[in-house]
Amino acid sequence: MLARSDLTAGAVVSGVGLAEQFVAVRRHSVGLAAPLSDEDCGAQSMPDASPVKWHLAHTTWFFETFILEKFEPGFAPFDTAFRVLFNSYYNGVGEKHPRPRRGMLTRPSRAEVLAYRESVDARVLALLEDGVADGELAELITLGLQHEQQHQELMLTDVKHLLSLNPLFPVYRADAEPVAAAGALRWLEFAPGVVEIGHRGEGFYFDNETPRHRQFLEPYRLATRLVTNAEYAAFIDAGGYREPCFWLAEGWDFIRAEDISAPLYWRKIDGAWREFCLAGLRDLAPDAPVRHVSYFEAAAYASWAGARLPTEAEWEHAAGTGGLAQMFGAAWQWTSSSYAPYPGFAAAAGAIGEYNGKFMVNQYVLRGSSPATPAGHSRVTYRNFFPTGARWQFTGIRLAM
Amino acid sequence: MLARSDLTAGAVVSGVGLAEQFVAVRRHSVGLAAPLSDEDCGAQSMPDASPVKWHLAHTTWFFETFILEKFEPGFAPFDTAFRVLFNSYYNGVGEKHPRPRRGMLTRPSRAEVLAYRESVDARVLALLEDGVADGELAELITLGLQHEQQHQELMLTDVKHLLSLNPLFPVYRADAEPVAAAGALRWLEFAPGVVEIGHRGEGFYFDNETPRHRQFLEPYRLATRLVTNAEYAAFIDAGGYREPCFWLAEGWDFIRAEDISAPLYWRKIDGAWREFCLAGLRDLAPDAPVRHVSYFEAAAYASWAGARLPTEAEWEHAAGTGGLAQMFGAAWQWTSSSYAPYPGFAAAAGAIGEYNGKFMVNQYVLRGSSPATPAGHSRVTYRNFFPTGARWQFTGIRLAM
Amino acid sequence: MLARSDLTAGAVVSGVGLAEQFVAVRRHSVGLAAPLSDEDCGAQSMPDASPVKWHLAHTTWFFETFILEKFEPGFAPFDTAFRVLFNSYYNGVGEKHPRPRRGMLTRPSRAEVLAYRESVDARVLALLEDGVADGELAELITLGLQHEQQHQELMLTDVKHLLSLNPLFPVYRADAEPVAAAGALRWLEFAPGVVEIGHRGEGFYFDNETPRHRQFLEPYRLATRLVTNAEYAAFIDAGGYREPCFWLAEGWDFIRAEDISAPLYWRKIDGAWREFCLAGLRDLAPDAPVRHVSYFEAAAYASWAGARLPTEAEWEHAAGTGGLAQMFGAAWQWTSSSYAPYPGFAAAAGAIGEYNGKFMVNQYVLRGSSPATPAGHSRVTYRNFFPTGARWQFTGIRLAM
Amino acid sequence: MLARSDLTAGAVVSGVGLAEQFVAVRRHSVGLAAPLSDEDCGAQSMPDASPVKWHLAHTTWFFETFILEKFEPGFAPFDTAFRVLFNSYYNGVGEKHPRPRRGMLTRPSRAEVLAYRESVDARVLALLEDGVADGELAELITLGLQHEQQHQELMLTDVKHLLSLNPLFPVYRADAEPVAAAGALRWLEFAPGVVEIGHRGEGFYFDNETPRHRQFLEPYRLATRLVTNAEYAAFIDAGGYREPCFWLAEGWDFIRAEDISAPLYWRKIDGAWREFCLAGLRDLAPDAPVRHVSYFEAAAYASWAGARLPTEAEWEHAAGTGGLAQMFGAAWQWTSSSYAPYPGFAAAAGAIGEYNGKFMVNQYVLRGSSPATPAGHSRVTYRNFFPTGARWQFTGIRLAM
Repeated sequence: MLARSDLTAGAVVSGVGLAEQFVAVRRHSVGLAAPLSDEDCGAQSMPDASPVKWHLAHTTWFFETFILEKFEPGFAPFDTAFRVLFNSYYNGVGEKHPRPRRGMLTRPSRAEVLAYRESVDARVLALLEDGVADGELAELITLGLQHEQQHQELMLTDVKHLLSLNPLFPVYRADAEPVAAAGALRWLEFAPGVVEIGHRGEGFYFDNETPRHRQFLEPYRLATRLVTNAEYAAFIDAGGYREPCFWLAEGWDFIRAEDISAPLYWRKIDGAWREFCLAGLRDLAPDAPVRHVSYFEAAAYASWAGARLPTEAEWEHAAGTGGLAQMFGAAWQWTSSSYAPYPGFAAAAGAIGEYNGKFMVNQYVLRGSSPATPAGHSRVTYRNFFPTGARWQFTGIRLAM
Repeated sequence: MLARSDLTAGAVVSGVGLAEQFVAVRRHSVGLAAPLSDEDCGAQSMPDASPVKWHLAHTTWFFETFILEKFEPGFAPFDTAFRVLFNSYYNGVGEKHPRPRRGMLTRPSRAEVLAYRESVDARVLALLEDGVADGELAELITLGLQHEQQHQELMLTDVKHLLSLNPLFPVYRADAEPVAAAGALRWLEFAPGVVEIGHRGEGFYFDNETPRHRQFLEPYRLATRLVTNAEYAAFIDAGGYREPCFWLAEGWDFIRAEDISAPLYWRKIDGAWREFCLAGLRDLAPDAPVRHVSYFEAAAYASWAGARLPTEAEWEHAAGTGGLAQMFGAAWQWTSSSYAPYPGFAAAAGAIGEYNGKFMVNQYVLRGSSPATPAGHSRVTYRNFFPTGARWQFTGIRLAM
Repeated sequence: MLARSDLTAGAVVSGVGLAEQFVAVRRHSVGLAAPLSDEDCGAQSMPDASPVKWHLAHTTWFFETFILEKFEPGFAPFDTAFRVLFNSYYNGVGEKHPRPRRGMLTRPSRAEVLAYRESVDARVLALLEDGVADGELAELITLGLQHEQQHQELMLTDVKHLLSLNPLFPVYRADAEPVAAAGALRWLEFAPGVVEIGHRGEGFYFDNETPRHRQFLEPYRLATRLVTNAEYAAFIDAGGYREPCFWLAEGWDFIRAEDISAPLYWRKIDGAWREFCLAGLRDLAPDAPVRHVSYFEAAAYASWAGARLPTEAEWEHAAGTGGLAQMFGAAWQWTSSSYAPYPGFAAAAGAIGEYNGKFMVNQYVLRGSSPATPAGHSRVTYRNFFPTGARWQFTGIRLAM
Repeated sequence: MLARSDLTAGAVVSGVGLAEQFVAVRRHSVGLAAPLSDEDCGAQSMPDASPVKWHLAHTTWFFETFILEKFEPGFAPFDTAFRVLFNSYYNGVGEKHPRPRRGMLTRPSRAEVLAYRESVDARVLALLEDGVADGELAELITLGLQHEQQHQELMLTDVKHLLSLNPLFPVYRADAEPVAAAGALRWLEFAPGVVEIGHRGEGFYFDNETPRHRQFLEPYRLATRLVTNAEYAAFIDAGGYREPCFWLAEGWDFIRAEDISAPLYWRKIDGAWREFCLAGLRDLAPDAPVRHVSYFEAAAYASWAGARLPTEAEWEHAAGTGGLAQMFGAAWQWTSSSYAPYPGFAAAAGAIGEYNGKFMVNQYVLRGSSPATPAGHSRVTYRNFFPTGARWQFTGIRLAM
């Protein structure tokens, strides 16, 4: 998952405007929690998810640990216990609270966590005002903000999962997840050749986007838009979840073991599909992109449709050409590429980089971004990644041939 | 567990003073939650435990379902969804929310649950004022109050377990769990003979306490007080948890699988035993009764001490004789009697009695009462019961020979 | 399980005829394996069962460890590795091979195990011929033979389970498990009073049958025969496995988790019940006693039939009165008594008795005997015991009221 | 796993000499079982492994199902039950026996399975003698022989695993797994450029080796030999299994959950490493390649050594250049490439090809071959694959930079 790694910025970021960015990003996190009660913020729906309160605290812990502790004269922690409670790292920065028990932390309260945020915010801003925003400080603050943006997306995916378990179908925000229209599906063709993949080095990027390197692509075609709910419903109606020939063997075992027969938040009520979303339960929008499918479901759908999933290099190369819709903002798009280091990749030194690359196994790359991704956070070279069974993220399908 | 069964009152209860009892018991539940935040009240620490908010709602559901629905003219439910959310019964009264997911119910809020309580309370009291408190209504209200008292104990045991998982060692109430002194252990002897066991039928009782019947007891001896923390610590120091000869085979497997080497809430810090309790973390009181041990640990200690656990008949017979300390209020006392129906036991008819006796397998009877038991709730014939691995209840040890 | 405990003989056994008994019992075990291939003898169908070869070796290990090692001058083990491989005890006699991996022991071969048996047999017989059959030697040999008889029953239950997993429905012996006729069910009444329970002390017995002690029995009635297949089929046809009101709560969870809807070896083929047995697959005999039901199923059937299971004291007291059929040889009969020590029970000293009583928790007593029980092995005071979910033993149902 | 897929031959094979090949390969399988007892052949050590007897039967089922049923006039199955028992496929060819229960099939006996083999062999040879060895028949027989060779390797890996669980350390063959010498490790450099990967189409190959396609390789270096036991022992001595910084996050969780601290068959006895192999227990050979490591261990070693694992394209390109030792026959070599379809890959039609590609997820490619691989079976383009936790195969490590 993004928030668990890949935190080393390679780019130098100017101090100009950084304080404003900092205030805006930090404020946005608190705003995301505004529609939620204290209980909503404290509950953990599964080990893969975290409470919103924990996200609010952990992103603050990041600034306290990697910035204040290093740059603030006479640094003292806000609360020593928080060093352990809100650490998500392994040994590099000491002990951590077990992940599946984050929902047990009814103390500190949300109010105390907000006070923690305010204290750290003021102290970070004081550093910026001191004019000490040299390269490294600016770089680490930028990294902290990118890290916080990743957690902003997780706050939404985790809250959606939590609320979905409540038979009352609670509404997070009535205007959340607006439905987008989609045109006809066409296929865009790409000629074979050596292409360059990876980040060029201007602006912010994560280290897993580098080094920029060459790949040879055989000719391929890419769908101009994502698979829609209506198309996916046709797959279900055609018996897609009952016919093993469309499925990877592990995927077939997965859907049977988990008793899966539709995307995560679809509910069949009185014979019609409805979908739970952050705006509550609503009718399934036929033209909206299907979301919340596992890699297995994405691959099975592609197989049934006589197509396949793209590689991440195919996706990235195409993204630079124009002509493709819904590349960003509609859904993260599963690729057939397992998450692996680029040729020449080297982990950064120190605690922040200690575990770079440690998630590069048994996960698949997703490209694009979702309705939950903060504005400006993603880009053409951005690599998101999740295990094949993950369904609570805003994951969708773009076909290739 | 008490609250899961055994809810049929056999005794007729006078309507006089019932309204006052009702108000007092209902108020007490809300008071137990007073020191807790909304988050504290919403979290569920394990499938065996329930959130405090759920206890507050479920006890209200009981009055709404078994009393208002039956006796109130023009009855309409407070909220139809609550019928499912706060039902702990099986098919007799419809669907229920899965027990392990009670902690996911961040909605309805605590405030809404308290409004639910107030509405139901007012309507029950209106019934009483209408003078319709005939035998059956009074009987059901009395049963509802006894049921609520059982949940009052569970609210405390479940909160204690939840808070124990927090490294901050939160304090529920600074004056909770005061330490009681204990005298020297002596052995009281009992002659053989036929004795009568079970409730005589005056006042309130649960159906599992009946029928009163005869049992023959061979001669036996009972310890005049409970096993103390100091005595139990000596068992640990003597290698009690490392030597299989003291343990039931299943108990030995249990402590190894669960990595158990001390009572549930003991913590060894800097070489000294401390104990987490509702007043926070404190030094282990040597003379206080050991609590929060499983049946397996109680039996192993008894074996190590050259003694055994009493049967429930031995306990009940002795309880009528005087001369024994700490029979009530110090800890529930494991007996070697598996929870089984008394000769001639018959389940009550209807939804309330539908599952009487359905827990009478693979559980062991505990006698007495604990610091968490509401005043006046237990009695000499009272039968509590839990599985052999249960440790989060206030369970202790009285030896027999 | 019988073979895991309760191995201390309390009675003095005369040396006269002991050699003949020894030869007969030891030969019988080998004979039980005769219809089986080497593979049949080596496979382990589940952790609760053991390979036949292991039973043959373990019973021999018992004589080698507890008799030869103690009484044979210049004793040397047949093979030191066998001391570990065929030990079922805990620490008292050293390490043991993990139980679930007994089926992995393809070496030593069956032929080697038979050679082990022959060597130990010859040496034990030599001890007897030496005239040293004093009290303790005779007692231990008798205990070893009783122990072996328990394993003879397990050899049959374990082989039946193994073969049942093979879609070819292999036949162990065409004449195994002959069908017995049953008369009409009547109810025999017993008056209340103090009775004596437990072994009187003449002849061989296990220590768990003692001390003989007094119990008071309230009036009760016992069915004159066991529940038949036809009666049990009627319970199934009436929806017995789909209606929770008949079931203990844990039993209901059990049958749903294990997907159980009939006795273990029943197979519905082309709309008719057939039963797998040691003679292969055959039509269900309507008048034969139902077998291979768990405690949960026995209790649910009794509840559906408006009756209950007897206590072990009721069963034992009635067994002395005559008038009851199928008390022995038809099926082990579940009682509602959890397996517990009799008043005054004390474990024997030393390795053999080291763990007496260690199985006295979360198991229920079965009385009588089954078609697989060796002739003369059981008796009125005999206490068999298994956990509530055990189904692969020859377990049946006698009703009480 | 090889034997579970990838069975479609793309090449035309001449009928000349095919009968001789057939006889030789079929005879070799029986020979591999020769040192084993019936029990050895029947046992299944874990769900991932199969009994040797099952391998012998399943490879025969393949010829019966895909060749005799199609080409033999008046075809009748040897035994209809075998169609299910020895089927490893899903729906395409009917029901199958559950994989984890293969060890329960004590019937049919090994002798019956050998009779099955002889019958099918004679009938296949009769087809060849009939001169009907046209393209498709020859192609399918060739495929059946390649399939059988894959199972020959599995017979050895599965038997090694089974015998390793026996404390007696049984010897399969005293001359098995001879120790090979290894020279000094050097690094061979490769220049960047577009290379061709995949099979050219002459001779036999599996469909996953095609289509041949272009890849761009950045400059890289490859170790001239495999990592040795001595080198791996140095990693252990340096605390490699105790330091998370070397491990993929999932790998760290894996070795802690499984309590892994050395390669699968290493045993530390009296302070010195010994290794269980098919020749029994022997001293660890310092210069022999380390074997039986998971992907996680291979990656952790590489990280500790300041290197990485090669991609499969790097391996394949290098394999064509000469200068590299131990490419074949020493150990399968983990690559960092997840098992995925080559560009343009299309599954074959029909039952044989029904599930081509269905294993292409969450597995990693291994290149080369092992001491257990039949002569002539592997090649430069051959793609073996296993999940990251697999250790019972002959898996080793070649480093890259």
